[in-house]
Parts: sequence; structure tokens; C-alpha cells
Amino acid sequence: MEKEKFIDPWGSELPEDYAKLIREFGLEKFNVSDFPNPNKLMRRGLVFAGRSLGIISRAIKEKKPFYALTGIMPSSEKIHLGNKCVIDNLVYFQKQGAKTYMLVADLEAAATRGISLEESRKRALNYHIPAYIALGLNPRKTKFYFQSSNKEVTSLAFSLSGKATLNEYRAIYGSTSPARIMSSVLQVADILYPQLEEEMPGIIPTGIDQDPHIRLTRDIAKRAKGYKFFLPSAIYHKYTPALDGSLKMSKSKGNFIELPESSESIKKKIMKAVTGGRKTAEEQRKLGGQPEKDMIYELFKQHLIEDDKELLQRIKDNKAGKILSREDKEYAIELLNKFMDDFKRKFEKAKNLVPKLDIS
Amino acid sequence: MEKEKFIDPWGSELPEDYAKLIREFGLEKFNVSDFPNPNKLMRRGLVFAGRSLGIISRAIKEKKPFYALTGIMPSSEKIHLGNKCVIDNLVYFQKQGAKTYMLVADLEAAATRGISLEESRKRALNYHIPAYIALGLNPRKTKFYFQSSNKEVTSLAFSLSGKATLNEYRAIYGSTSPARIMSSVLQVADILYPQLEEEMPGIIPTGIDQDPHIRLTRDIAKRAKGYKFFLPSAIYHKYTPALDGSLKMSKSKGNFIELPESSESIKKKIMKAVTGGRKTAEEQRKLGGQPEKDMIYELFKQHLIEDDKELLQRIKDNKAGKILSREDKEYAIELLNKFMDDFKRKFEKAKNLVPKLDIS
Repeated sequence: MEKEKFIDPWGSELPEDYAKLIREFGLEKFNVSDFPNPNKLMRRGLVFAGRSLGIISRAIKEKKPFYALTGIMPSSEKIHLGNKCVIDNLVYFQKQGAKTYMLVADLEAAATRGISLEESRKRALNYHIPAYIALGLNPRKTKFYFQSSNKEVTSLAFSLSGKATLNEYRAIYGSTSPARIMSSVLQVADILYPQLEEEMPGIIPTGIDQDPHIRLTRDIAKRAKGYKFFLPSAIYHKYTPALDGSLKMSKSKGNFIELPESSESIKKKIMKAVTGGRKTAEEQRKLGGQPEKDMIYELFKQHLIEDDKELLQRIKDNKAGKILSREDKEYAIELLNKFMDDFKRKFEKAKNLVPKLDIS
Repeated sequence: MEKEKFIDPWGSELPEDYAKLIREFGLEKFNVSDFPNPNKLMRRGLVFAGRSLGIISRAIKEKKPFYALTGIMPSSEKIHLGNKCVIDNLVYFQKQGAKTYMLVADLEAAATRGISLEESRKRALNYHIPAYIALGLNPRKTKFYFQSSNKEVTSLAFSLSGKATLNEYRAIYGSTSPARIMSSVLQVADILYPQLEEEMPGIIPTGIDQDPHIRLTRDIAKRAKGYKFFLPSAIYHKYTPALDGSLKMSKSKGNFIELPESSESIKKKIMKAVTGGRKTAEEQRKLGGQPEKDMIYELFKQHLIEDDKELLQRIKDNKAGKILSREDKEYAIELLNKFMDDFKRKFEKAKNLVPKLDIS
């Protein structure tokens, strides 16, 4: 029971009742009409909540300075389609004029996962940064940095460490440890750091599981009197469920799509995916599909079908029994292969670009 | 009761029973014959214990590389005679061949005292570093650094933060907080950092109240398998009691001698000092003094009388009633003034030197 009070950013449980989350944690419901040129995650309710959204919406409309920031933990060697949601939203804000920051959490990876700084640097330069660029991040308009190289961030972390108590960490996270405390404080410093460079509000696009960090950052920003920080805004998307409909991405189960992934592997994973289809083709034609339970439709909705009309028509046709699950899967494989070819091409190009970027 | 188990480095209680401390915390008794050319603190039992002293004693005798390190917290604007013990021991090891490190704990001062990095830098460059040099530190043979500028140290701190649990912090310190955890881990990194530059043992001269940090550092060094650290050695001196015989240095009570201090102020403070003298001169001549309870003799022993024979003779004469407390005080004032003139001259010279040093 007690555990339910926490959204655990280190766990991987899927919060099932998003409305309840909004109520319990005092989130703002995301209102798509407040944001110009919404991306498909926003249009389709996948972005569902946030904090201090108004100040960012106004900054976009009034063309005032604001920033968007994301961090990557190089503990995973590859990212997957679920991670793409963060990047889509980051790219959205970049296109709306946000000063954009992408940081490599190498100190956190060292503290909580025992990954050496060298290994983190290698992974980030060879994979994560080019992958983000391939997914749409404009490298010329992004400030990249490694935590271990950013003295301002580490110094800010130490300065801010006295602004929250151990009990607050426990109240926010449920449990804690020295390494997690240090990582959390450093994350707070990362999130606020752009405001040392320029007084402006900023937004963190992230999964709802990261809200505890955002709350901690807002609490600390409020108390850091000397700094005059804007409380950071946040925008939250829902989880991408795994292809088997479960709540956990599992490498051994092969229930999620990595970037990149070979065509054979895509086929194998998609063919195993859980759908809302009926037992037989006949039944499907008679009763219709259940796209709301269909992991292939999750993929269509989140990543593969850009056009809203096409998506709606397909959902309608599936419900009407006009499309068989096998056909959906074949189409998903086709779209994924196309997506992956495009990704690989852009990734190789980005990899060549990275050494020319000013990354400290 | 529970509290007695801890030596609290943030408190200022004087542990009264040093032998008990040695037993309870498993310290090594300091053996003066193990160290060549012992300084007066060592010769007079003021240095009383340590950890892993043998490896340092051997390094000195065999002329093998080792280091000595101290850190200063620029939270205090001035140092006092009590602090001088650390410097005396640091200088001792420097003279015996130690590679010497002096770091400014500006990140700790920011975390636990809210002092800005700029303020810390100013204080250290204008006061603490020249004061240490004036007290005998050889600046040409010392590596100075600010924590906020030393990426290797902050990175090491994050890497090592997972090597101790919250419960261990609690067991060592009694209580803790996020700012203290971060400061402690950073201190651990400071202490081990010279070993990243060269594989060698090192010794930390410090007050016995800092043993918890040393224990934590040794525990973490033991567990940091990838690094092959020597467990840091430590050498502990007793407290300098305040001039009123109390356990607490108090600015408002004026019960300790700052560096520098004016001649009038010295006179005022010394005249108020608690002595082992009797109520009247007559009684003193009859019964003799009690130098073991006499704060003036503490000063003679720790700082003012270099020559052992002179000190012993004076103690003998005092006990025999041949010296009145007023005479002791006058002599202390004379020696302190001489010491202070010397300090001020060397301090001004050192201040001019500091801008030419390579301090990062």
C-alpha cells in the first residue's frame, strides 16, 4: 500500500491509472490547444500531463527565451522505441525555439551503475549522441556536455545539496542511498544549470516515472534564494508498453524494438507481439479487432503512422473487422524497416558529424 | 550513552579519555621512536595515535614515495593556534619527503555552510594559503587545489559514492544529511586522489575528531576494487584546549589566539587565561604550581617553547613554586608577540608569492 504512493524512477512499473497520478501528485493535465504545432504524441494523448506548462506555452507564443533539456544515462548500450518519445518531445521544443541541452550523465552512471567515465564517453559519442541526432535533434542548435566535464554543474550540485533533507529524499523516492542522493542532486543541478547561463524558464520532456526528480528540483529551486530560479517545467508522456503487452521491457524476452534493429529481428519480434485480434480470421471479420489492446496499434500510434487521418481510418477498419492482425503486423514490419533504414542512414551521417561538434 | 560511541567531527566536544579512544576505535598508539626527527608535538605526546603508521614510517626511512595531505574549510575567516598542530605535522611530513597536497574545500563550504565559491577562493588565496606558508609549508613543494576546479576529485567522489550505505554513514557519524554525505564522499575522494597521480601510501595529519572521515575513507578504499588504493594512514593530535580551560573555542569569549592577533589582544586574552596557579603568591611559593592544569603551559608545550630542556626546567620550576603565574603569563605574552611578529612578516611575504604559484 505504502509503495503505491511513490512513482519510482528506478523501477519499471507502469502506472495504470494516469488520471489518478494527476490527482495524487498535483500534476497539470496537458492541454494540446495550448501548444502550437503539436507533435503526434501530443495530439494523441500520449503526452498527458506536466508541471508549469503555461510559462512555456507563453514563451513559445511570445517568442521569449526558454530551454529544453534532456539527459542520457549511458548505462544502456542502446536506446529503444520507448526512449524515442523523450526525443520527439525534445525535438518539438527545439523546433519551437527552445535553447536545447543534451547532457551525458556519466557521473551518475559511475555512481549508480559502476560504469567508468571513459566507457560512458565512448558510448555517448559513438552511439547516444548520433542516435539522438538521427532522430531529429539539431546538433548545431544543441549544447552537449558530460557531467564530469561541467564544473558549473558539479559546483551547483554541492551548493544545492543542503536544500533538501534525508527525510525529503525518503518521502519523494521511498528509499535512498548515498549514490542515489548524489545522483539526484546532480540531476537537480543539470536541470537548473541553463538558468546560470541565462535567466529563463525551461522544460524537461520525460516519462511520468521521472516526476520525483522534477518535484525535488522544484522544491530545491524554490529554496535556493540566492539564485532566482524559475521552477522547471515538465511534460510527461505515458510509457510505451512492451510488445508482449507487459509492463517491463526485457532484453531476454525480446519484447521491444531497439535502435537500430535488423530486419529479421524486427520481423521476429513483431510476429510475436500481442494484438487485439480474434482467434480466427473469420471471428476477426465478424467481431472486429480491439486496437485499444493491440501492441501493433501502440506502435502505429506512437511511432509509425504520422498522419492522423490514416491512423484513425486504420483503427476504424480494424474495429470493423476489415483488417486482420497478420496484415497489421506486415504493415508494421514494412513501416519499421523503412524507419530503420532512414535511422541507420542518418545515424551514420551523424556519427561523422560528432567529432566536429563542440562537446565538452 | 549511544552518543559516546561517536567522535563527532562536526561537533566540538573534547574526548577526555584518549586511551579509551584508542581502545574503542581500534587506533594505533603513536610511537615516537618510529619517526625520524620528531617534531615537538610528537615528542611531547600531543600526537598520540594514528592508523597504518608503519607504512609511512618505513617510507620515510627507506625514502620511498608517500604523500601528506590536508584540506582547509574556508568557512572560518581566520585560523587559530589550535589549527597550527595540523600544519606542524603536515610540515613535518613534507620535510621527511612527503609529496604534499593542500586543498581548499570550497565545494564542502558551499554545501554545508552556504559559502559561495568566489568567497572561498578569495579567503583561501588572501588568507589561508599564505598563513600555511607562513607557518612553514613549502609552497614550491606543495600541490594546491580548489575542489571546485578538480574534475578528477569530483569524478572520483561520484564513482566512490556507491561504496558505502546510508546505514554506514549513520553508524560512523551518528546522524547525516545529503549535504554531509556529499561532503564526506568528496573528502574521501580528496584523500585518495593523490593515488590516482601515483601509486603510493599517504598520511593525513589531523585532529582525533576527524577519525570518522578516515575510517569511512579506509572502508571505501578497501571496497574500490578497481583502484588498488593504499588505505590512507592518519596521525592524530589532541585538541588544544581553550584558554579558559573549556572544551570550546568561542569567538565571543575570546578564549583562543587567532593568527594574526594584535599585541593588546594577546595581552588581554593571556591575562584572562586559566592557570594552575594558587590563590596568592605566597601559597604558590609554598605549594608550587600545577602546570598540568595550566593553559599557559599548554601553550608553552604545544607552540611557544621549542626546546625540550627549557620546557622541562620551566615545568619543574613552576611545580617547585619558583615561578609565579604572572611571570608565566608575561613570558607567554613575550613569546607570542615574537611568534606573531615572525608570522606577520612571513605572511606578507607569502601573500606576495601566492599569485605566482600554480593554484588551480
